[in-house]
This record gives sequence, C-alpha cells and structure tokens, in this order.
Amino acid sequence: MTVVTKIAILGATGYTGLELIRLLHGHPAVQVAYLSSESAAGLPLSKVHPQLAGITDHVLEPLAPDRIPPGVRLAFLALPHGSSAAAAPELLSRDITVIDLSADYRLKDPALYDSWYGRSHPVPQLLGQAVYGLPELNASAIRTASLVANPGCYPTSVLLALAPLAARGAVDWSSVIIDAKSGVSGAGRTPRQDFHFPECTENFKAYRVGNHQHTPEIEQELASLAGEAVTVTFTPHLVPMVRGILSTIYLKLKPRAGFSLEELYNLYGEFYRGCPFVRLLREVLPETRWVRGSNFCDLGIRLEERTGRVILVSAIDNLVKGASGQAVQNMNLVLGLPQETGLSLVPA
Amino acid sequence: MTVVTKIAILGATGYTGLELIRLLHGHPAVQVAYLSSESAAGLPLSKVHPQLAGITDHVLEPLAPDRIPPGVRLAFLALPHGSSAAAAPELLSRDITVIDLSADYRLKDPALYDSWYGRSHPVPQLLGQAVYGLPELNASAIRTASLVANPGCYPTSVLLALAPLAARGAVDWSSVIIDAKSGVSGAGRTPRQDFHFPECTENFKAYRVGNHQHTPEIEQELASLAGEAVTVTFTPHLVPMVRGILSTIYLKLKPRAGFSLEELYNLYGEFYRGCPFVRLLREVLPETRWVRGSNFCDLGIRLEERTGRVILVSAIDNLVKGASGQAVQNMNLVLGLPQETGLSLVPA
Amino acid sequence: MTVVTKIAILGATGYTGLELIRLLHGHPAVQVAYLSSESAAGLPLSKVHPQLAGITDHVLEPLAPDRIPPGVRLAFLALPHGSSAAAAPELLSRDITVIDLSADYRLKDPALYDSWYGRSHPVPQLLGQAVYGLPELNASAIRTASLVANPGCYPTSVLLALAPLAARGAVDWSSVIIDAKSGVSGAGRTPRQDFHFPECTENFKAYRVGNHQHTPEIEQELASLAGEAVTVTFTPHLVPMVRGILSTIYLKLKPRAGFSLEELYNLYGEFYRGCPFVRLLREVLPETRWVRGSNFCDLGIRLEERTGRVILVSAIDNLVKGASGQAVQNMNLVLGLPQETGLSLVPA
Amino acid sequence: MTVVTKIAILGATGYTGLELIRLLHGHPAVQVAYLSSESAAGLPLSKVHPQLAGITDHVLEPLAPDRIPPGVRLAFLALPHGSSAAAAPELLSRDITVIDLSADYRLKDPALYDSWYGRSHPVPQLLGQAVYGLPELNASAIRTASLVANPGCYPTSVLLALAPLAARGAVDWSSVIIDAKSGVSGAGRTPRQDFHFPECTENFKAYRVGNHQHTPEIEQELASLAGEAVTVTFTPHLVPMVRGILSTIYLKLKPRAGFSLEELYNLYGEFYRGCPFVRLLREVLPETRWVRGSNFCDLGIRLEERTGRVILVSAIDNLVKGASGQAVQNMNLVLGLPQETGLSLVPA
Repeated sequence: MTVVTKIAILGATGYTGLELIRLLHGHPAVQVAYLSSESAAGLPLSKVHPQLAGITDHVLEPLAPDRIPPGVRLAFLALPHGSSAAAAPELLSRDITVIDLSADYRLKDPALYDSWYGRSHPVPQLLGQAVYGLPELNASAIRTASLVANPGCYPTSVLLALAPLAARGAVDWSSVIIDAKSGVSGAGRTPRQDFHFPECTENFKAYRVGNHQHTPEIEQELASLAGEAVTVTFTPHLVPMVRGILSTIYLKLKPRAGFSLEELYNLYGEFYRGCPFVRLLREVLPETRWVRGSNFCDLGIRLEERTGRVILVSAIDNLVKGASGQAVQNMNLVLGLPQETGLSLVPA
Repeated sequence: MTVVTKIAILGATGYTGLELIRLLHGHPAVQVAYLSSESAAGLPLSKVHPQLAGITDHVLEPLAPDRIPPGVRLAFLALPHGSSAAAAPELLSRDITVIDLSADYRLKDPALYDSWYGRSHPVPQLLGQAVYGLPELNASAIRTASLVANPGCYPTSVLLALAPLAARGAVDWSSVIIDAKSGVSGAGRTPRQDFHFPECTENFKAYRVGNHQHTPEIEQELASLAGEAVTVTFTPHLVPMVRGILSTIYLKLKPRAGFSLEELYNLYGEFYRGCPFVRLLREVLPETRWVRGSNFCDLGIRLEERTGRVILVSAIDNLVKGASGQAVQNMNLVLGLPQETGLSLVPA
Repeated sequence: MTVVTKIAILGATGYTGLELIRLLHGHPAVQVAYLSSESAAGLPLSKVHPQLAGITDHVLEPLAPDRIPPGVRLAFLALPHGSSAAAAPELLSRDITVIDLSADYRLKDPALYDSWYGRSHPVPQLLGQAVYGLPELNASAIRTASLVANPGCYPTSVLLALAPLAARGAVDWSSVIIDAKSGVSGAGRTPRQDFHFPECTENFKAYRVGNHQHTPEIEQELASLAGEAVTVTFTPHLVPMVRGILSTIYLKLKPRAGFSLEELYNLYGEFYRGCPFVRLLREVLPETRWVRGSNFCDLGIRLEERTGRVILVSAIDNLVKGASGQAVQNMNLVLGLPQETGLSLVPA
Repeated sequence: MTVVTKIAILGATGYTGLELIRLLHGHPAVQVAYLSSESAAGLPLSKVHPQLAGITDHVLEPLAPDRIPPGVRLAFLALPHGSSAAAAPELLSRDITVIDLSADYRLKDPALYDSWYGRSHPVPQLLGQAVYGLPELNASAIRTASLVANPGCYPTSVLLALAPLAARGAVDWSSVIIDAKSGVSGAGRTPRQDFHFPECTENFKAYRVGNHQHTPEIEQELASLAGEAVTVTFTPHLVPMVRGILSTIYLKLKPRAGFSLEELYNLYGEFYRGCPFVRLLREVLPETRWVRGSNFCDLGIRLEERTGRVILVSAIDNLVKGASGQAVQNMNLVLGLPQETGLSLVPA
C-alpha cells in the first residue's frame, strides 16, 4: 500500500505553482494539503484557473506558514524571488522540508546575491544549508536535505550540457559562450508590455545581455564541478512560444583534452548512466517540442573540425525540467521514491 | 492485480496515432503490442518521433492485420479515411474489437457516405454493425460493440453541446447555425501549402463552407436524438494554433420550449450527470486552452434576450476528446474499465 | 505641385495612432504637425516605438488641443473611448476637422450610447453633427463633414458585407447571425492578463457574447440602409494573431428575394463599382492574410442550397480598413483627394 | 518627369519574388514588364496569390529569357539556387543587367561553391564578373555592375554587424561565434514536414550546425574586408515566426585594439555615415519586429567587461534587407537612383 505524504504549495497561481499542481495530480504518493496565493486567497483555485474545474476543489489560503495543517511534510515555494527566502525559516523550524523554486537559496555567496539581485539577502545564514537541487549532479545530498534550492531554468539547461566535460576538467573556460533561448512562460504570469501578445508574437530579441541574474548560478556550479574559477558569457533570448529553452553552447577543449565525437558521446553516456531524464540524441539535434510537457533534458553534441570547437545543444521544458518537474524530482529523492515517480510524461 | 490487455495501433505515426501512444503510455491496464506504419515500417518509432526516445523501443510494422500477434484483443485504426474501412473485416474475423478513428464507419447510410466522401464505401455491409462511439450518449452500446466508429472532432464538439436540447425535442432545427473553429492539427500531419507555417500562422479563414464532410455525421446523430429530420448549417474555420476546437452554436427553441438560463444549466447538469469529461462553465465561457491536452469537453450557455436565441459554446482538444482520448474512453468501456482510466489529464 | 496639409494626431502611441503614422509617412499630401501622448509627453516618438528611429524625430506633446500649431487643418483622435468626445468641441471651434477613431460619435442616439457604454455621453449635442465615416456608403456626406466618426473594426467588416443586400431590402433580419473573429491588436496596447502571450497564443475563445458594444453601431447602420428596424446576433471571438478580422455572416433572404449566386455577385459588383478597396473574391474565400497591412475589404459569397441560407465572409485588417486606413480614406475625402491616396498598399 | 525603366522578375511566385512585387508596386521609377513562374505559367499572378487581386493583372510567363520583351533593362532572378546560374548568361548577352537573389554568384571560388553546395557550378566563368551586392560596402562597384550577386539573408545580418571592426583590422577571428536565428520564410515556400504548422510553431531548434552554406559567403566577405584569412563558427536556428533574422555575434578584439563602448559606437556611426538603412540603437537592443517589412538593419553593441568580449546584435527582415529590399536597393544603384527610392517603408 502506498504511503501518501501531505505537501503544501506556497504560491499556487503562478505558472510554476500551476505546473506543480498539474504534475502532482498524477503523482501516486503525495496529496496536496495546502495551497496559498497572496493575490487570490479565499477563492477556489478553479476560479483563477478554470482549466482545473472538476479536477480540484481546493480553496486558496493566504500565505501564512503557521496555517499549514499538521502532518505536512514538505512545502514547495513557488513565490516571487525575494519572498521565498523569508518564508523558509518558519517552515524549517516546523520540520517541513522546503523545496524553493525561486532563486533565493541558489547562490552560496551572499555578496554575489546582493550584487546580481540588487538587494540584501534576508536570511544569509541559511545559504550554507541549502542544497542545489540538480538531481543528476547532487542526488545524494538532496536525499537528506531540509532546504533544496531548485535550479533556474537556464542553469538547468546549461549545467546538464556542460557537466560531463566540466567534471572531467576538459573545458577551456575562457572560450565558453552560452547562447540561450527561452519561451515566454519563463517570464512569469504578470502582464507586461514586452509580453503583450501583439508585441511578443512574431518577434525575437536578446535581453539582459551581459547581466542576466542566472550567470553567477551557472558559474558557481560549473566552478564547483571543474574545481577552478569559471567565467562565462551568457546571453538569453526570448522566443515567441510558450514553453521551452534551447541552449547552444560553444567551447574549446583544453589543449590536451582531445575527444572524437564518439568519445564525447561515450563520456556523456557514462556520466548520465542511470539518469532517466537525460537523453542523448545523435542523428538529430534537440528541438524544444520534443521535450515539451516532460521532464526530459535532451542533449546533442557536435564537433566543428574547421574551428576545433565543441558545440552543445540542450533542450528542456522550462516549466518542467526547468522548474516544477525538477522540483518534483527533488521531492521524490527527499521522500525516498524513485526519481521518476509521477514524471513519466510523454512530450506533446 | 491489474489485468493487462494487449492492443494494436494501426497507423501509429500520424497525429492521432501518436496521441494514442501518449495516452496509452500512462494507462494502467493495457499494453501496446503492435504498431504499424505504412510510411515508416521497419523503423523504430522514436526515429520518426524523437520525442519518444527513451520512452518506447517499438519498431514499426507494415500494415498487415495478419501479423498482429495472438492475444491482441483490440485494435485502434488511425489510418487515413478510406483505408480504415478495408482493414476492419479481417480484424473482426479474428475477434479483435476495432475502434476506428477514421470517418469510415460513422454514417449509417452508405449513399450518404458515397456522396459526401466522393467514393463508394468498400464495406457497406458493416455499417449497420458499427456503434457510434460517443460515450456520453451511447455508453451501453459501446460496451458490447465489436466495431466502434469513433466520432469526428467537429461532431464531438457539436453533439455534446446540442444533445441535451435535442433529446428534449426542444430545438427549432431550421434555426441552427454551427460556426466551428479548429486548430491545425485537425488537418493531419501531411505537409500542404495551406499549412506551411508562413501561410498558416497569422491567418484566419473559413473553409469548405457548406460542404464539409462532417455535416451528415452531425445531422445523423442529432436526428437520432431528436427523432426528427435535421438539417443544419455548419461552417468550419482554421485557427493558427495546434490543438483545440471551439464551436459557437446558435439556435432558437421550439415555440413552447421556454427555458430560463438557470433551467438550461439544470437540464445540462442533469443530462451529463456521471459524465466525468463534460464540464459546465457558468461565469466564464469555454476557451480552448482550458481543455488542451485533456479529454474534457467544456460547455457554456448564454440566452440572448434581444433575439431570443440560445448560444452554446463548446471547447475540446481535437486530438484528445476529438479523437484519441475519446478512442481510449471507448476502449475503457469495451474493456469494462471506468471511463476515465488513464485519462485523468490536467489541461496544460 | 502638391499642396501639403498639416494634420495632428492626438493619441499617437497606441496601435491606431502608430498605424496612422505609418500610413501618413507615405502620404504625398499631408504633413504631421502635432503628435500628442498622455503617457509619453515630452519623449521622442522613436523612444516609445524604436521602429520609428531614423524615420521621424517628432517629440510627443501633451494632450492639449490649444497647443496644436496654427495651420493644422485636420486632427485624428486616436484616444481611448470616452476621452475623444471631450477633445472634439475645442478642435471644432478652431475649425479643425475631426476624424475620431474612438466609438464616441458613432451612435446617433445618446441613450443607446449610455446603455451600451455604461456612462453618459459628455457631448451629446454633437452626435447629430457627426458623419459615420464608412466611405463606401457615405462618401458625399464625409466630404463636407467637420466631425467624422470613424467606424469600429467589427462594424466595418460586417456593414460592407451586408450593405448591398440591406440597401436592396432583401434581408430577413430575424435570421442574421454574425460570427466575427478578430486578431489581438483590436484590444489595444495596454497589457492585460488575457493578452499575456502565454495565455493568448494557442488559444481561441468567444467574448462578450450577446453584449459587445459594437452591436448597436451595426444595427443602427443596417437599419439606416434597410429602412427598417434591425436586431442581429453578433458574437466576437479572439484569434491568436496580431491583425485581421474575419466575419462569417449567416442570413436568409426575404421570401420573394430569390437570388442565384451569380446574381448576388452581380449585385455586389454593381454596388461597389468605383470602390477601390472592396474586392469580391469568387473561387476562393477571403483569408485575413490576403488583406494584412492593406486597406482592402475582401468579400466572398456562398449560397447553401440545403438550408436556403446566404453565407457571407468578409476580411479586413482591423488596424487599417478597420481603423487607421479608413481614417486616412476619410481624410482624403475631406481634403478632396482621391480616396486611395497614400493607401496603395500591397498586403504582406 | 520620371523616366520609367522596364524590369523583369524571373521566379515571381516564391516569397522573394512576391516581396519584389510588393516593393516595386510602390516604386516610382520602374515598371514590371515580365513575370515568370515555372509552376504557374499561364495563370494570372493574382490567382496564385489572391492578396494581389485588384493590384495587378499580370499573367505569369514560362521561364524563357528569350521571351522577355525588348526594352527590359534589368532582371531579378528569384529562382531556386542552381537555376539562377543557368539563366544569367542569356540575359547578360541581351544587355539586361542581372540581380540574382540566389546564392549562385556569391562565391568567388568555384571550388568553394562545389564543396558547400554539393554540385558543380554551371557557369564558373561568370563568377569573376559578379559584384557582391551589399550596398553599404560595395556601392560604387554595384553602380556599374552587369551581374549583381544579392547577398544571403544571414550574411547580410552578419556582415553589416562585423564590417566596421573587420575593416579596421581589429577582430581576433579565432574568437568569433555567430549565433543566428531566422523566421521560417527564409526556408522558402515549398511545404515540408519541418515547416508544417503543427511541428513548426511552438518549437525552436538549431539546424545545419557546422555546415550551413552561408558560412563560406560570410568568411569570403569578412576576409576581403579584413585582408586576412577568416574562419568563423556560424550556427543558424529556426524561430517560430514568419519574418526576421537576429544575429548575436561574440568576438574578442585584437590585443591592442582597445575600444570603449562609446568609441565603438563612434566607429560604427562613422562607418555607416550616409547609409540610410543602417540604424545604430543604443539604449535598447535590436528586435526583429522593429525592422519587419522594412529595409533597415538595426545594430546594437555591448561590451562585456567580465570577459572582455564584444557582443553585437543585428536585426533585419530576411525578405527585405535580407533579400528583395536589398535587391531593389541594388537596382536603384544600377539605375542611378537614390538608394532609398521606393524603400521608405515604416516597419509594422
């Protein structure tokens, strides 16, 4: 008989909250016991999101950790960046494991947080305790964590692509360019001029060139893998589609780290052995639609003989492997379940 | 312990075949034992559809009913209209229940088939045996059927909207206008000039005005419900989106059939009691995104006082409730399972 | 030598203001002398709309009719509905002809305005003086008007489709259903949840069923053409594209008004003789992309023998023939220029 | 009085042919005297493209240079790559200036053509005579050319971004990465599985990584500007939109070529002085919608202090500045007209 664990979602009406609800609806071992929303407290969830009519009759609670019912074992924070940090301590004090989908606990160095996010971290003393929740790299630490910092969508797509080479110490970091492209749901649910349909569709642009806040997160984790300081160029772009991130990554290998394409594929295959969500594509390169709605990260590798560069292409669904699916994967690890529980989703 | 039934899908690489594979992947009581494709026989399915990499290692078979392995209890025909009819007899002769997603077995009158489809029906003698597979209307006949004609996408959206009033004999049929709008996946997977991205996106059009082949199917079923001859105006349109049908239906009630809006909602609520996939929306009207990826049909009702018209709005995902989801729902009935088995999908 | 007339645009940064600027940039006989914006006064126009960099160095003025420079002969009001009404009197008192793109001066009956728009008309005494600016119907009155009420986008598409039959007195008005579909730019430039890209793309819906404020405008003009009271059902829908309106119109003719399809096309051809922007399509039906960016209204006619209905399909670009292009066409009439001056645009 | 020059368009029904027709419709100094189409010879152009109804009554001719009427002074070749080369000699022999929109005459080295295009060049002896038609770099040669090779869409966006630094000899070529993104119209008008709406919308992908045929064209022109051998990494991507190319270009400057951002903008401003179609954006970065439908190339420059990289962003409309608009600009030069004649288009 399946033991059912009670969980809470704080910030249930944004896109990552909504995606958690979608994914957990099909999860055999958890029960959603508390859903909060600051903007819609008191309303039935299906009133805010009519797609949930007939699926759930949850009523949204205000954001009040002390009203989370007893017995809740784990809480997802799908709150705006900044609000998450403040909510964590009380949950932890009540022995509720926290999986934070915001950026608040991802950086180890509070000074880095302050400079990239433009404000002081409200709870810097917890940063050391937080485990970076990328299961393919940190599964054992996640299993015993009380505070999991769920990775950003761009970093997930980048780190999974670079990790095998980084861990091998094979990358000439001065050569690394990450050109990433995201669907619009990555910007969240709040209307804004840039995301107004007539100005967003049939348009393509770069944004935050040279200063996107996911840069230090990427560098921190790569440095940790490589055991050396890492500085990269990272440029995000906005694609007129809802879901998906595709990252094209350019690099040169260190002088003595010669790999044939076959050796690269072998290295990656070895590195991700036993990882159900990383797929290596060979004949074709990743496309975002092939991962849409699923927790997969698809990877492709090319060697450009003319320039000696390795070109990596990775694709994820930013709301699934880039956010809520990864959060559920982390939850599965925390609860001692197989990673893929509730996540056997066919892309569509 | 769950009994697992073996099934076959003939025509696995088109959109409805692919959607069957997606839905059945999460179904607890069936196992896909045979997948055919005329165009890609011999190839792994994941070569044709890389989104299935790591999910299935099926190799596509040629379309040869006699090669279906013993033990297969049910076959879905997701073949082009016309090819399905020919494949059915042999399957039936082998005691394999057939759920045909094509239009071939939907019309009872072979003459009607001939005139609307422009060719002679190859197996007219089976038309009488086929059960029209709209579970909300025909569940008990479907349970014992050997040949189920899965409804068309447009007819599904229209019939579920009109059935309660039709069954009540309340509709003035001379007043009925059905203005329907479909996403592009309804046109299938074969490239064509009209569906070439640069000519299809940022465009809206009507097509087959006055002569769409779903018209007689709609009229046949409405006549059967109403017990009188039915002729309607039905106009399909193409929306630059992938999935979804929204039908806006205009009608006047028969002179003495006065209903308040509340009475209409009550009538519909009563009619669809126990139907897990029909949702009545009240404060808001259906939108296609609220059913996307799911087997729901959302219905909304408005009374226009100024003109005395009833306006019905219905929304489905054309590939799910309009095709493969409904086919799985029919399969569940045939296999004696709860209708919603494997179909508890949250729209996204 | 061309005489150049100075004109003003009040409300230059919304979509209709921007489209006026685009169209007038290529107009040989006018010069834009004043551009106002309440939200961006003091800024260069190209700062608000970088697509205009290098094209214009206009600086936006506050909305202050008394600051319009002397010599301005005509002003376009591209202001929010409600603000336009208030701006007109001062302009008229300065002998500036007003072409109002808002809804404020379209209805003759102030009571109708009050009930459909939910507020009192601020300047009801001007309603009688305003000329409804549909050049195909009212060209001679427009030529001498001082206040032109530019038609709504939906009404333009509907009236041009119905006018020839209405003027002939051939329509059974109790049968008329107008099912209209619009691109998102029709909703204006202000961000809103419904028009947020991730919730607007890949979605189709009806809205304001039975109570859209363009209904009385349509009925008023049809009644005027037909010489009898007119009540119609009008349902707008939102299409995930930027530009375009397609209206599908269903009607029955009066008992003795039998027309063959050929006769209908002849009637329309006759009615629109000399109208450069109305195109009758015969073999194919209108599609919105075929008018995009242009001032054309494409019309198609079908007779449905089975039901005796006439089905009309009309397509316009809502920002051009449905707003700013029509406003320029009206300006041309006022200035005594050929209607098509500056409007010879190839759809793209 | 304007002298009107007769021109021909060979290959009038594809996207670049159609765009030529749109642009030349508003051109004051030319008259289209001959339009050919292999697939639709004998049909009125407006039958193939109903958006041209009422605009032109041209009937399409077969592709037969000898049927071009006397007096035609210039011909645009908008033919498939490969067919263009063969059509040029006869036109030239008849003293008709040729502007070839295909790739056939762009590469100087026939061996390069053979290896990247996978076939032998049919007329290699003409390669030396062809002038590369990028007006911002080659205006004076174009003015006297008899055979103009109109640049590719990607190369246009890349060369205009890199030319000022290349000409200055300031680029460390081993560092150059070009990550380019194109709308779907760049792939032409022939339907194909990848461009089928349901598989193309809501998708993003890289393609031809490491082997796109525009690479040698880019390298050839950069080498010519820089006076040194150039090898670059160039990766194209497909964006789910119709028009637009955005190229993001990463480079390091040569050791002693230090520039501040202000100095870079000055260098570019100087280089493109008098070029009406190159716009330098400063506060905002280029977006494809700001050039859509126009002949502009928008450029933005950023310096990334952390890595010492220069990041260039350029945006064009692939069908205008990337093809037909540039061809008209070249024609203007050949005819001794101001470059911008007929090209004063406001993006929309």
